[in-house]
This record gives sequence, structure tokens and C-alpha cells, in this order.
Amino acid sequence: MSEIARFKLPLRYRGSEPSVWVEYIQLALDYKPLNLGQGFPDYPPPKYVTDALINVASDTTQHQYTRDFGHPRLVQALAKLYSKLIGREINPRTEILTTLGAYEALFSSITGHVDDGDEVIIIEPYFDCYEPMVKYAGGIPKYIALKPDPKNGKVESSSDFVLDKCEFESLFNSKTKAIILNTPNNPLGKVFTLEELTFIADLCKKYNVLCISDEVYEWMVYEPREHVRIATLPGMWERTITIGSAGKTFSATGWKLGWAYGPANLMFNLQMIHQSSVYTGCTPIQEAAARAFETELDRLGTDECYFVSITRELKPKRDFMAKILREAGMAPIVPEGGYFMLADWSALESQVDLSSEDDKRKDYRFTKWMIKNVGLQGIPPSAFYSGPHKHFGENFVRYCFIKQDENLQAAADILTKWKAGQI
Amino acid sequence: MSEIARFKLPLRYRGSEPSVWVEYIQLALDYKPLNLGQGFPDYPPPKYVTDALINVASDTTQHQYTRDFGHPRLVQALAKLYSKLIGREINPRTEILTTLGAYEALFSSITGHVDDGDEVIIIEPYFDCYEPMVKYAGGIPKYIALKPDPKNGKVESSSDFVLDKCEFESLFNSKTKAIILNTPNNPLGKVFTLEELTFIADLCKKYNVLCISDEVYEWMVYEPREHVRIATLPGMWERTITIGSAGKTFSATGWKLGWAYGPANLMFNLQMIHQSSVYTGCTPIQEAAARAFETELDRLGTDECYFVSITRELKPKRDFMAKILREAGMAPIVPEGGYFMLADWSALESQVDLSSEDDKRKDYRFTKWMIKNVGLQGIPPSAFYSGPHKHFGENFVRYCFIKQDENLQAAADILTKWKAGQI
Repeated sequence: MSEIARFKLPLRYRGSEPSVWVEYIQLALDYKPLNLGQGFPDYPPPKYVTDALINVASDTTQHQYTRDFGHPRLVQALAKLYSKLIGREINPRTEILTTLGAYEALFSSITGHVDDGDEVIIIEPYFDCYEPMVKYAGGIPKYIALKPDPKNGKVESSSDFVLDKCEFESLFNSKTKAIILNTPNNPLGKVFTLEELTFIADLCKKYNVLCISDEVYEWMVYEPREHVRIATLPGMWERTITIGSAGKTFSATGWKLGWAYGPANLMFNLQMIHQSSVYTGCTPIQEAAARAFETELDRLGTDECYFVSITRELKPKRDFMAKILREAGMAPIVPEGGYFMLADWSALESQVDLSSEDDKRKDYRFTKWMIKNVGLQGIPPSAFYSGPHKHFGENFVRYCFIKQDENLQAAADILTKWKAGQI
Repeated sequence: MSEIARFKLPLRYRGSEPSVWVEYIQLALDYKPLNLGQGFPDYPPPKYVTDALINVASDTTQHQYTRDFGHPRLVQALAKLYSKLIGREINPRTEILTTLGAYEALFSSITGHVDDGDEVIIIEPYFDCYEPMVKYAGGIPKYIALKPDPKNGKVESSSDFVLDKCEFESLFNSKTKAIILNTPNNPLGKVFTLEELTFIADLCKKYNVLCISDEVYEWMVYEPREHVRIATLPGMWERTITIGSAGKTFSATGWKLGWAYGPANLMFNLQMIHQSSVYTGCTPIQEAAARAFETELDRLGTDECYFVSITRELKPKRDFMAKILREAGMAPIVPEGGYFMLADWSALESQVDLSSEDDKRKDYRFTKWMIKNVGLQGIPPSAFYSGPHKHFGENFVRYCFIKQDENLQAAADILTKWKAGQI
């Protein structure tokens, strides 16, 4: 065997390709468009959050290894918060794991529970890493797409996308090990209702299935919708791992701090994966997040609480984004949660030279053309569908609206000029 | 299947147990001994390093996601540093990956290269995570213990432990995918010589084997020994992944920042694992480390350079530690590198009640008895040997000497009192 052929990826990982993020981050670096692509605020986290990190960095005792499964002060704070939210006492030592972002929590949950041949149900559109994580663990993803269920003939809200109950139930069988739920959903912004979650929960119980609930956008839910934690439904604590994110919670995505919580027997599996892949997390970041949580715990539910005010901040941005997309001739799906918006751009197809790009998928060609010719970056949603379902995403583009008002206005200006033929 | 049995660890991970660290960190929390166990300084990192983090935390632009495979400023600084050190231009975009500690770099290297049935050579004693990482990847570890080769009938230095060349060569065959090298070695402190590394390199080339070189203690090498990077040997760049650590380099283990460098085709495999397990690292920590490296790059090799002064700081601590262990009746192995010391405690066996603990291994019983009865914590070295070779470690204890002088003196006082029967 030649020297280079010898060092190919192990069989399990063959076919791995750089993710959509690697390609689109490079495009952003190369073309410098107005970036409404990747999901992070283009403005600072709250000052008390960055102040917490400054203070921690100044404390010379906060720079060495901390506890493997979670910094003690942070798991205490998380236990206190989620015990209140789910109405059950959470043990900070055995029922919480802190991770390098929610991403590592997903990795540990999936790798720690999915065995060769296990089936895992994934609801589309989905955060793109679910698929390779399940496959690398030897699992078999089973997909179901949320389908538009037009009210008054229109599809205008993420609530217009629903699970087909018959199709959903048909995916469950004795090989089904887990379902990955994401509420609020990225990229669609759907917030699952209590009725929908009860239906999912009943099937999980009937088929003895684990529920991995990715709730990183738990604090960004727009009235009248409310975030329901599936772990609080009867009989679900025993079979649910819930995942959260300090990056999303405190608008500090660069901190790359996440967590998972659930019953000790389920969390043990995650601990073993964590122990053999990263072992422990970053001390100063965890200490700073602990202090930030303590600040919020003291004012939980009040108007000043960031977990309340962030939605107040985001709602006008969401509504402005929907307005400018409509004015540009797109058909936005207004999200009930999160900070992304899908918009159908197919009415604009004649204004775009899709032949200038050679990607297979139309939404890749549309978004690349927009980056290079109009200077506005979105993400192609077909990345969030499985192979046979990618066409569901092709008429859409995903924009992120947790951006400064002046940058949202700049996006409006770009779209207006483009519509007027001035770009 | 019962609900709980359903959610056992996947087959690949069965038999996983909490590592020695989980148990001994808990003992430290419970008994509060003088802790010479885990490998981290009990004093602050250099002030310019913590100042870098304070300044970064104060910069509101440094709290969002950064580039997936490494923060641009950090990979630039690392490329500049290692290009000098290895005498070859390193491409910061394709030949470096930054990771959550050297630990994740090891995980990505092993998981990204070891396929089912591949054999991997591990030299004992070894940093304990190598073994589960290889096994979880489906690989088969092949062990060889460094054996004492007494000069003048005495074993007093880590250089007295050597590879048996015949035994070593017999481990190589067509199934050998990789060797994991660790120089300076933890826990022994052996620094492999140019002659030893050349022998290893020649076998790697002859059998077309990957070398994963864990060099996290690269800056802690005591004269006259010098650190040799195996990637600089003829024909080795093409088959070597070298791993480093900001935690060890800057005495800030809590930052959990590491990296790997090597040729792009080998690094691609690591990127794919990184991308599907953690995706990207912590922004403020990477930015702060980049700034710290830039400071050192300007004074590389001078007396002020921390990479030089750290050894100056550590050598008296090493010598003091050896002295107090000898005075206590142990036989220390003086390390040529790193900040750990093994010591043979078997001459003291009659002073210790080994029957009070029920662990299988004597060194576990000795260290636990010492924690509970003498108040001094070390780590049992049998944790660093494979099952059939654990007896090689049983007469030893590992102490860490990157500790404040007053704490080393406190250790001396404890040992003196113990020897005098006052404890």
C-alpha cells in the first residue's frame, strides 16, 4: 500500500466532507459579504457576562484543571436553575455534565448511547451535525421532514410545519434506540407544542426510546408560544437527556460551553465518552458562566433577567427581517423561536444566474451567487436535510437575525438596491 | 429488555470505568491531603499570560465563534513557532489543528487514524488515556514496557529505563498502524535520545507506520538532555503528528488548549473527527494564547523566554523532591524532563498498613493509605501500565513537583514526621 493510501480515514468515517460551515465561513472570509449566515450575535454579550470573565481571569486561582465532569460552581448553578425549571431536584454531581459547547454534549449523548445497528429518528430540517454523529456511532438515521400544513392556503409561520403522525409512528420499531428532538428548532424556528411533545413522548415510552432533546434556544421563544421541556412530561425524565448552551444563553458563542442533564444512569454513558475524548473543560470559562448564572438566578423571571430580555431584544429584529425579506420578494417563514429565519426565494429565480455555480443543489447556487454578486450571506437549508429529502430545502435560504440593527438595516438596503436593479 | 438495560453503553465502550483521575480527584476533595497528585502547578501562570486573558475578555469582539480548525491568530503564531523549531514552513490553515487540550488532539489523532483491527504500539508507562482511546477506535494496543537497565547496579534516573530493541522490533508487522510516543514521558520523565528516536523512526519508516508524538512537556527538559522532535528526523515529517499543550507550556492547565501539527493529509483525518465531535474551540482562550505566544516569539531562546525559564524554575524543585523522598526512605527515579517523579516506596512497606484498603494493586493501597493516614497524595503508577504489566508500577508512586516551594517544604515536613513516627 502506498504511504498516503495507508493513512486514509478509518472506514467508519469515509465519505466525511468538510461541513457546510467550513465552506461558508471560508466564503465569508474571502468575499466579505454582510454575514447573516452563521448563528452568532455580531454584538457583544451582556456586560456583566464579559465582566465575569475579566474578573475570573484576574483571579490567579482560576487557571488550573477543574473537575472532569463539570466545574463544581457551575454544576451547582445549573442544578439550581434546572431543578426549578423542571420541578425535580437535580444532582449536580451525577446528573449534569458540562461540555465544549452543546456540540460536544450532542456528541457524547449520541456516541454514548447509539450502538451498531441502532436506529435513530431525526426530524428534518435538523442541525447538520446530528447525521454524521449518528452514522459514526454505527447508528442508522431515520428521517422525517416537517411538512407545510397551510392555514388559509398560506405558509407563513414555523407553526405551519408539522409532523405527519402516521409517518412518524411508522418510524418506530424495536430497533429504534433514540430520537433527536430540537425545540426551538434550528433552522426552522418551530417550537413544539405540548400536544406535539406529548405525542412524541408517548411513542418514546411505548417503544422504550431515548429522547435527546437539544434545547439550546430555550430562552428565545416568542409569545404566545412557550418552551416546554419534554423531560417534564410524565415518564420522560427517565429517558431524556436535555442539552443546553451558555453560548446561546448568554450570547457568547465563542465561549463554547454547553451541558447535558438527565438521570444518572443515562449520564454515565456521556461521562465515559467525555472522559475518553476531552476529559475536562475550560476552568475560567466555566467559572465565569457560573457567576453569570448566579446573577440570573437572583432575578429569574423578572424584566431584568437576560433570559426574559433577550426575547424582547430579538422580536423586533425578527419582525424587521420578515418585513425586508417580503419586500425583496421572498416568502419568509416567521419563526416561533430561535434566531434564524427560512425564506422561500423561488419567486426571485429569474433575477439570479444560477448557472454561474456548479453545486448540485439550487440553494447552494443561490446563496453563493448572492454572496458573490449581492454581498449578502445566508446558509443553504438543504444542508439540514438528508440526501433523499434535500429538495425540501432547495427553495429556501436561512438568515440569522441576532445582528445589530444597523446591520439588519444594511441588509434591507442591499435587498432594496438589488430589487431596484442597482446591484 | 428492561428500560435501564436498554440504555447500557454501546458494546465498543463496555468495560469503561471512571479513570484513576476521577477517583483520586474525589479523594483529594474528600480528605484534603497535600496534593502532589494531579499534574498542574499550584501557583499562577506568568502574569503576562493571565493579563492576556484579562485583555481579551475586555475586548467585546472576542466572544463569538472562531474558525473551526483553529483561531486564525493562534494558528499563525503556532505556525511561526514550530516552523522555526522544526526547520520547515508549516501551513497554518492545513497543517495545524487547535483542540480542547492535548487530550482532544490525542483523541482526534487516534480516532482519525486507527481503524478496526489496526495495531498500535504503546510504550509503558504511558499517559493512561492512550489505551481506551485506541480500544474505542477498534484498535489493538501492543505494549512494551521501558525496563530498568541499571548503571553501576543502580536505577536512579529516568535515563536508566530503556527500550529492549529486539522486543520493540518484534511488535512491528503489517498490521501496525501507529505508535504513540511520549517524550518527555509522563509519568517516568524519560527524554528519548536522538539515538533512541532514530531507532524508532527507522522502524516506523520500514513498516510504514504513523507516529503520534505527544510532546506536551517539550519545554521542561533538564540539562544536559535536549528535547528532540521526531518529526525533524529524515523521512519522519510525512508520518508524524506532533501534539502540544498551552496548559503545560504556559502553566495554565485550566485553559484546556492544545494542538496537533503535521502534514495536511494526516491532519485532514483529525479535522474530520474534530468537526464531528466539538467543531470549534473557545475563542477568548485561543486569542489569549495567541498573544502569549507572540510575546514569547519576540524573545525566543533568551533568558527571559518562559520556555527557557520554566526549566530553571523547575530544576531546584525536582532536586528538592528527590532529596526529600530519599530522606524518607524511598528510591526516586530522577526525571530528565517533565514535572513528575516516580519513587520506589517498597522499602517502607513495613510502615504502611496495606491491608486497610481493598484495591487489587499495592500502589493503589499505598497511595490511599498515605492520603488517609499521612495526608500526602501521589498517584498509583500501575494506572499507567496495561493489565499484564501493572506489576511493573506497583512498587512506585508518582509525585508532581510543579508546586510552590512552601508546599514542597510541607511535603518534606510531613515525610520527616512520618519517618519519626510522629504521624
